Amino acid sequence: MTGSPTIGTAADLVATLTARLGSAGVLTDPDVTMTYARDRLPLAPSGTPLAVVFPSTTEDVQAVVRSCADAGIPVVPRGAGSGLCGGANALEGCVVLVSTRMNRIVEVDPANRLAVVEPGVINADLRAAVAEHDLFYPPDPASYDFCTLGGNLATNAGGLCCVKYGVTTDSVLGLEVVLADGSVLRTGRRTVKGVAGYDLTKLFVGSEGTLGVITQATLSLRPRPQAPGTLVAVFGRTADAGAAVTRIVGEGLVPSLMEIMDAATVAAVEQHLGTDLGAGDSGGGTLLLCQSDAGGEAAVRELEVLERVCAEAGAALVHSTSDPAEGAMLMQARRAVHPAIESMGAHMTDDVCVPRTRIADLIDGCARISADVGLRIVVNGHAGDGNMHPTVIYGGDDEFDRARSAFDAICELGLGLGGTVSGEHGIGKFKQDWLAHELGPVGLRVHRDIRRALDPDGVFNPGSMFA
Amino acid sequence: MTGSPTIGTAADLVATLTARLGSAGVLTDPDVTMTYARDRLPLAPSGTPLAVVFPSTTEDVQAVVRSCADAGIPVVPRGAGSGLCGGANALEGCVVLVSTRMNRIVEVDPANRLAVVEPGVINADLRAAVAEHDLFYPPDPASYDFCTLGGNLATNAGGLCCVKYGVTTDSVLGLEVVLADGSVLRTGRRTVKGVAGYDLTKLFVGSEGTLGVITQATLSLRPRPQAPGTLVAVFGRTADAGAAVTRIVGEGLVPSLMEIMDAATVAAVEQHLGTDLGAGDSGGGTLLLCQSDAGGEAAVRELEVLERVCAEAGAALVHSTSDPAEGAMLMQARRAVHPAIESMGAHMTDDVCVPRTRIADLIDGCARISADVGLRIVVNGHAGDGNMHPTVIYGGDDEFDRARSAFDAICELGLGLGGTVSGEHGIGKFKQDWLAHELGPVGLRVHRDIRRALDPDGVFNPGSMFA
Repeated sequence: MTGSPTIGTAADLVATLTARLGSAGVLTDPDVTMTYARDRLPLAPSGTPLAVVFPSTTEDVQAVVRSCADAGIPVVPRGAGSGLCGGANALEGCVVLVSTRMNRIVEVDPANRLAVVEPGVINADLRAAVAEHDLFYPPDPASYDFCTLGGNLATNAGGLCCVKYGVTTDSVLGLEVVLADGSVLRTGRRTVKGVAGYDLTKLFVGSEGTLGVITQATLSLRPRPQAPGTLVAVFGRTADAGAAVTRIVGEGLVPSLMEIMDAATVAAVEQHLGTDLGAGDSGGGTLLLCQSDAGGEAAVRELEVLERVCAEAGAALVHSTSDPAEGAMLMQARRAVHPAIESMGAHMTDDVCVPRTRIADLIDGCARISADVGLRIVVNGHAGDGNMHPTVIYGGDDEFDRARSAFDAICELGLGLGGTVSGEHGIGKFKQDWLAHELGPVGLRVHRDIRRALDPDGVFNPGSMFA
Repeated sequence: MTGSPTIGTAADLVATLTARLGSAGVLTDPDVTMTYARDRLPLAPSGTPLAVVFPSTTEDVQAVVRSCADAGIPVVPRGAGSGLCGGANALEGCVVLVSTRMNRIVEVDPANRLAVVEPGVINADLRAAVAEHDLFYPPDPASYDFCTLGGNLATNAGGLCCVKYGVTTDSVLGLEVVLADGSVLRTGRRTVKGVAGYDLTKLFVGSEGTLGVITQATLSLRPRPQAPGTLVAVFGRTADAGAAVTRIVGEGLVPSLMEIMDAATVAAVEQHLGTDLGAGDSGGGTLLLCQSDAGGEAAVRELEVLERVCAEAGAALVHSTSDPAEGAMLMQARRAVHPAIESMGAHMTDDVCVPRTRIADLIDGCARISADVGLRIVVNGHAGDGNMHPTVIYGGDDEFDRARSAFDAICELGLGLGGTVSGEHGIGKFKQDWLAHELGPVGLRVHRDIRRALDPDGVFNPGSMFA
């Protein structure tokens, strides 16, 4: 934005926004707006918004964007604030545009396996709506009970399903987006295939609110998969668990879920649940959890091969079940990871993604970093796609710098293993330096060129993702 | 490009290119260069190139692009010239950059299920190379025996696999691209998941040589599927065949292939092969061909459901087989479609994609257009994803205008049914007006803005796709 707006401009803008959205649609009391100033990453910087606005329609969004652009005041789009990169964090004096009132499931079309939604729809609500038609919307970030689809689209969210069903972008057919000049762009289409023009849909997905405000999305759905069979394997040595993952990929298996928890994570979960997961018997083991939703004989066969491969890779314990209830019980260990970590106090969760053959190297590297900085690091993640979440546990402000240096060392380790600094959480306002490092100067320049082409005056989330 | 280059500039450029690539790497004889002036769409405009060049390395491509940019002479990237939209057609006085010398399979990494290739690799050569590792590269355009992966990437090529395995973009992890200023951009990564930065990979895929020259690609591979079971169904009424497709989608089935041929296509194929496909018995029927590669019991079950659904939708004949040899025989009818059409003389093949529920409407609409213009139109295509290829047969130059008006009427029909003007062939130098129509003014403006951001002086394929 060119120059700082005057106080008069700010007051005029609030008046204009209020005239459009009503007083209930524009919050300015700092005690209230501060609850919209941050997402769930406690570490990224944030400012105090000038106002928090709640548009109900695409036309409302157009009006907000136009007014803010005219006033030279940046817009930060936001869904439920469940993000983990600070992408939705407020900038000082900005307008936070919250999509939660735009929460209609506009259409479910079972015959064409698609849904049209507004950005404020909760992920779980769409899942439930399409399940009535025996359909399935795969992207399942851990926050699916409360995150919005708009946020999922903005961050290209992942989840446990990705190993078989891909990330959010793989389920998007088209978007409606309000651009920086207030005009409405429609990308993509309602057909499952189409190559007319550039793939703008996938350019906006994952752009973290820096290119426009998504006001509607056409999402592709899949047939509802079968109830999954579940396998748990415990490995005494991390390298063996890593070898099992490599062999599972090499054997041509595509489980519908494949999660890994290192010994430190297992210990944290055991402590949290007050139960013994059986991993301790093998001397502090690494846990691998797999599911197959192939159904019937195919699932049984897939689980048999998984069992054999894990045993051959040196698992101390392998157990599989086709019983959904027992499978759900085994999955509790995975579900308890986040609460277990929460209960350990302050933490920084990283989000590197490495080639699937390098998972053991990542876990071992994190153990070295943990020893170097003298802080506990628990490692768990989506082994099926190499997206790992090493989490640095630290005691408080006095350990922050050491935690941050461990976090950075993990990013460097991930890149060094041929990976990326973000598998699913995004860059936001915390990892800009790492993005620049990963992209290199040409990549960064192209990012800037594209952003400038679409938002020449820096209306949307300036400074977020990259400067 | 600003202004026309002088003859001196052109001669200087050829000398510079020859100094870099050697005389065997630079062709200027018009009798020879004209064989590089067109792709396989006979209708799109083309010019005579100043030179046709054959770089062997990324550095060669950089040098060519820099020299052409300096001279103000446009570059048209090209693979094997198997395209069907004129995208690789030469512009008058341009340099055609042919990728066929850059044909190394740099790496196949079975453990991470990926391959790194240069753009001149033939699609079938990669398929064969990865099959040795029991892996599968899905995109299978009809031209896979001779088309290059670079061309597949530039057009985001489809094929018969798309109904289950997606289009080219769904198999791309990362790219190396030479930009208009000669710098090298690396997009994406080697991991199966990653959200760091904008998805530039999928922006370049399908950009038809208008944003840069792809010099390397990292492609994701899948486990090799099982030998497929095959089903053929014949319907007396188009509407019944359409209803069968709708019900197959609605039943949650995902066949690995689902092709449709209308009565006119069946008649053409029967005439070409000199055999009776059995469709005539039902009074000129529509043929539906499905395959399932789910393997074992799962495939048998899938074929059983397909058989039931087709029968319930009113098929006059349904036959399925798990025998690969018999399946291949049934597939011959599909494979004979192109030669059968070729033998009918001049033709324009359209490439609309409609929602899968509207396939029957498209076929019926084409019959009306055929009657209106008094020309034969055969309709066939990928029913599983709604991507149809109505093909207008015309007698010669005197019928060209009527054929073109039928072609345009089909595009309009496809858009009217909620579809797109290109499912897999692209826009190139023949459908620019239809792209502009489909995108609308805001979409077209964003396309121009992005192109200008990446290629401000119009080095790459100016005027192709959109002006």
